[in-house]
Amino acid sequence: MTYVSFSKDKPLDFVAIGRLCIDLNANEINRPMEETMTFTKYVGGSPANITIGMSRLGQKTAFIGKIANDQMGRFIADYLQRNGIGAENVVIDRSGAVTGLAFTEIKSPTDCSILMYRDNVADLKLTAGEVSEDLIAQAKMFLISGTALAKSPSREAVFQALHYAKKHGAIIVFDLDYRPYTWTSEEETAVYYNLAAEKCDIILGTREEFDMMEAFEHNPDHNDDVTAARWFDYSAKIVVIKHGKEGSIAYTDDGASHKAKSFPAKVVKTFGAGDSYASGFLYGIMQGWTLEKSMEFGSASASIVISSHSCSDAMPTINQVLDYIESCNSGKII
Amino acid sequence: MTYVSFSKDKPLDFVAIGRLCIDLNANEINRPMEETMTFTKYVGGSPANITIGMSRLGQKTAFIGKIANDQMGRFIADYLQRNGIGAENVVIDRSGAVTGLAFTEIKSPTDCSILMYRDNVADLKLTAGEVSEDLIAQAKMFLISGTALAKSPSREAVFQALHYAKKHGAIIVFDLDYRPYTWTSEEETAVYYNLAAEKCDIILGTREEFDMMEAFEHNPDHNDDVTAARWFDYSAKIVVIKHGKEGSIAYTDDGASHKAKSFPAKVVKTFGAGDSYASGFLYGIMQGWTLEKSMEFGSASASIVISSHSCSDAMPTINQVLDYIESCNSGKII
Amino acid sequence: MTYVSFSKDKPLDFVAIGRLCIDLNANEINRPMEETMTFTKYVGGSPANITIGMSRLGQKTAFIGKIANDQMGRFIADYLQRNGIGAENVVIDRSGAVTGLAFTEIKSPTDCSILMYRDNVADLKLTAGEVSEDLIAQAKMFLISGTALAKSPSREAVFQALHYAKKHGAIIVFDLDYRPYTWTSEEETAVYYNLAAEKCDIILGTREEFDMMEAFEHNPDHNDDVTAARWFDYSAKIVVIKHGKEGSIAYTDDGASHKAKSFPAKVVKTFGAGDSYASGFLYGIMQGWTLEKSMEFGSASASIVISSHSCSDAMPTINQVLDYIESCNSGKII
Amino acid sequence: MTYVSFSKDKPLDFVAIGRLCIDLNANEINRPMEETMTFTKYVGGSPANITIGMSRLGQKTAFIGKIANDQMGRFIADYLQRNGIGAENVVIDRSGAVTGLAFTEIKSPTDCSILMYRDNVADLKLTAGEVSEDLIAQAKMFLISGTALAKSPSREAVFQALHYAKKHGAIIVFDLDYRPYTWTSEEETAVYYNLAAEKCDIILGTREEFDMMEAFEHNPDHNDDVTAARWFDYSAKIVVIKHGKEGSIAYTDDGASHKAKSFPAKVVKTFGAGDSYASGFLYGIMQGWTLEKSMEFGSASASIVISSHSCSDAMPTINQVLDYIESCNSGKII
Repeated sequence: MTYVSFSKDKPLDFVAIGRLCIDLNANEINRPMEETMTFTKYVGGSPANITIGMSRLGQKTAFIGKIANDQMGRFIADYLQRNGIGAENVVIDRSGAVTGLAFTEIKSPTDCSILMYRDNVADLKLTAGEVSEDLIAQAKMFLISGTALAKSPSREAVFQALHYAKKHGAIIVFDLDYRPYTWTSEEETAVYYNLAAEKCDIILGTREEFDMMEAFEHNPDHNDDVTAARWFDYSAKIVVIKHGKEGSIAYTDDGASHKAKSFPAKVVKTFGAGDSYASGFLYGIMQGWTLEKSMEFGSASASIVISSHSCSDAMPTINQVLDYIESCNSGKII
Repeated sequence: MTYVSFSKDKPLDFVAIGRLCIDLNANEINRPMEETMTFTKYVGGSPANITIGMSRLGQKTAFIGKIANDQMGRFIADYLQRNGIGAENVVIDRSGAVTGLAFTEIKSPTDCSILMYRDNVADLKLTAGEVSEDLIAQAKMFLISGTALAKSPSREAVFQALHYAKKHGAIIVFDLDYRPYTWTSEEETAVYYNLAAEKCDIILGTREEFDMMEAFEHNPDHNDDVTAARWFDYSAKIVVIKHGKEGSIAYTDDGASHKAKSFPAKVVKTFGAGDSYASGFLYGIMQGWTLEKSMEFGSASASIVISSHSCSDAMPTINQVLDYIESCNSGKII
Repeated sequence: MTYVSFSKDKPLDFVAIGRLCIDLNANEINRPMEETMTFTKYVGGSPANITIGMSRLGQKTAFIGKIANDQMGRFIADYLQRNGIGAENVVIDRSGAVTGLAFTEIKSPTDCSILMYRDNVADLKLTAGEVSEDLIAQAKMFLISGTALAKSPSREAVFQALHYAKKHGAIIVFDLDYRPYTWTSEEETAVYYNLAAEKCDIILGTREEFDMMEAFEHNPDHNDDVTAARWFDYSAKIVVIKHGKEGSIAYTDDGASHKAKSFPAKVVKTFGAGDSYASGFLYGIMQGWTLEKSMEFGSASASIVISSHSCSDAMPTINQVLDYIESCNSGKII
Repeated sequence: MTYVSFSKDKPLDFVAIGRLCIDLNANEINRPMEETMTFTKYVGGSPANITIGMSRLGQKTAFIGKIANDQMGRFIADYLQRNGIGAENVVIDRSGAVTGLAFTEIKSPTDCSILMYRDNVADLKLTAGEVSEDLIAQAKMFLISGTALAKSPSREAVFQALHYAKKHGAIIVFDLDYRPYTWTSEEETAVYYNLAAEKCDIILGTREEFDMMEAFEHNPDHNDDVTAARWFDYSAKIVVIKHGKEGSIAYTDDGASHKAKSFPAKVVKTFGAGDSYASGFLYGIMQGWTLEKSMEFGSASASIVISSHSCSDAMPTINQVLDYIESCNSGKII
């Protein structure tokens, strides 16, 4: 059974809006960052990673965002183009903003952290007037990411984009992607996350992210059923709540819930798991696959990325995912 | 025919959220403010004035807002209580904010202006967590005012209040009350006004205010029919577009439009016309009167206030309005 | 003995830089401001009051400052001109700043307070580039006021003005005039007050103001001798430390200290005492009077102002001061 | 002839205050940064580099600054300690500030640029109250760097430090180190640079930096003699004006001017030339060498650093500098 259906005649499969930044990944890993002497540069940012993933899976994609008018910004624009992602609505900042940075620290495969540079970043300077209604009108699926709601004017750009996406009948995905910096308070976060979620068809997030959205609600047991049920009164068709290693659960507006198995991995670091899961899962949904199959595809995609050094660069092709599933099923990867 | 219906068993007729401030009205009028030497102090702010008007019309009312921790704030709290307005959710600021001020200049009855002090004002510091869900749950009608959307955290407080009002089935009124200061850009204004208006049952504003909301829409002729029609796809039952002296027009979700006559006045100043119109009109709606009768009552109320020196203090009682209508109809006021 | 001498051939006796604002004085006094219904408007701000005082004492004066581009600003400019104060270097703000306000509350002659509006005020927006070197070059005496150091760019304007005043040999007066709002911290205040004081010939302040300047110094007993002595190592010739009703003490760079009697007054309110003292005292200094006689003249001037409703408007003429001294000496005022 | 003399009995040769940050130097050079994929991390910041240089030349040194409470901050603290630089007055920020970053781009040996991250940086959060008077009291020479004047509260910390340095008789050096970001305007820069320079014994800067300081002065021909002469009326003993490849000129308060030869170099990049010149030159001054010999030692030190990949790490020892001079003089380096 499919829960969402897509306009066949739209030219773009997938458009996302939000954060474009730079990951600076530690080259010398399994040690504290104090002892890391060199870093390698990659394009990063959750919605960027998901879009790169979708593109690598053969989807026609485009991005809406803002980049700094400097070497980092130009590197990002160039990377998008080299990966076949439409960048005509990637606006160049003229206010002196910088590119967001994420220095990754990998103390061990299970002890990873990020040192973020998020002051005066270009991605949060996208304005509502810079969002292309035409581009969104061409998209079958449209994804927003919570971080883009963290500050004006990007916050307004996202709400305006949601308005366009709804008006033109795109399937709207909300990747919660909550990061505490930049936000003024948890109350502020909860208000805008809820306002945005009301308008979305598919909501993806961790249990902790949904908890944050329930700051004003009554769900003392952090019950997934209660959490998911709220959204079917609005626009939601699918709500996916992720529980890390314990797997995730997808609720649908017919009252059903769905689980799928996860896959083993030789973990290098945990970064990028959510983004690769999202691109794999959404790819499956767009193919009309069952939720279970889509979730499985997402899980395998996540296992591939966390076995690699980068996030964006490691996003797999369809064959890589299928091979990985096959290798796991045949016991080659355990 | 009535377009909205109210829960009979709720204890409060009317609750509003938003701006509480001080008007400093020129005592020596019909001259530029440079030549005015003394000013008289009144409670002001559009939603405050409307609530005072509703209270004077015999309705049970309460207010949700924030006041400065100073003499001006205490004067406001005291005035609300003396006027029978529930002030238990009027929070006292602890951050050193000040009370908003509006110095009025009356050069002539038709040439009036306001000098505003809106930096660091207490009313815009109300937070989402300070809004009482219990209070909103008791309200038959709940009014928001656009100015409260101008800045965080008040903006979030309004959206949270809208959530509560919708959850508890209040009839929600949006008095657009657009003031350009405080807002960062017209785009920002349009985005949040539209997000809020989607959730409201009754929308009241001037043609210029609706124009501002259509910054991203296509309505080149500023056509009222086009403007009103948009909102019936969301929650709206009644949309009132005001055209100053040329009167106003009320659209309803059955496709009808309604006009009503206005009344003569010995105009002292134009301030307060909109607020007294709103309280008179909404009073009529709450009594189950026809739109025409409600609009007439609002118009008479407005004529009374613009014939007086103050706004809040001049808000009329039912008998004053009925007498005024009678005096106009009998030719005593021309 | 005279401690400072003035260039005879300079055309202006006195130029000041800094705060120009509006006092809104309670008309109904001897009650809390909550019960005051009307206010009267006056020009205010410590350096403005002192300059008005100097002008009323027959000195040729000019002011350097910035006013809001509104009715309050125009009232101030007009008042200066009507009082014979050169306003060619009173710049009009173009950034949307407002005029600072001071609502006075007079609960009793000895229990007075001020409610200040100091957010986004025009006077603190004066820039270094807007200060006229030519004007300062014409001044025999040049006065700065501590409040103008509270924030950039006014802070830089004051330091640039000090540079010009020193370069052109004006006698520089520092009226400490410390107000805690606007400043970020006491440390910040102390640093800039000290930097400015190093360049001044005459320093006037209350004991509490000098205490604030000694945040990083060692003067645990708040000893006036210790306080004054520091400044004679820099540029100071006269340091006046005021102790409210207990009178004030003037130190001079020859190691002497000077006291003078104070005068009785039928006190209406305490505001303006310091400003009128300063203008009277500095007038005496400019006439070459002894310190004792100058202090006496300042004290009588202060007694006149605190017996009146306003500050600026009540600044006395020479004859008024002399009459007041005579009336006190003859027992008519006790 | 020596122009400055040092207290023999102070335990520290050299203390500096100001910027501590991270350089991220492109590993793949001679190309635009867009094509650089990896970066190597070094401690950076002009006063940090000079202090590292002084330490490598065998001087007893300490630093006054503020570091972020993160991995970058801890790396800096650790590096200082490993280099024998006293870090007891290197304060850890608790406000969530980040470490300043400088990504270097080396397109060619003569076409180098820096991409700066200076928003919300820890080094500009040092407060006046955090500066240790005791530490400054122990210093023979004390250096300030202009960048630390760019913003409050670091600006106040520098002025307070200057007060302590003057009080305790340190020889005060001002390395102008002007960087346009962070500053609000050139006027603001000029005012504070001049205020600080008045208190300094040795002033070092490029012609362009001195031009910036003369925003309010009259020196239309950018004449070095005019520039230098101003400062001898204040505290200056030596003023060094640098003209890039054309060499530099040192003025002294006896009216003399001094030039010294520069040295050839196999230039990798131009960064760090000024810092290594400063440490070499100041080392010579502290040894009582002539200006010519000190300048030569500084020039050779600069040539060594610009022949290397890093700034801080490449700071030479005495023997390295002497060898370099010898190699140049003997024609081994041309």
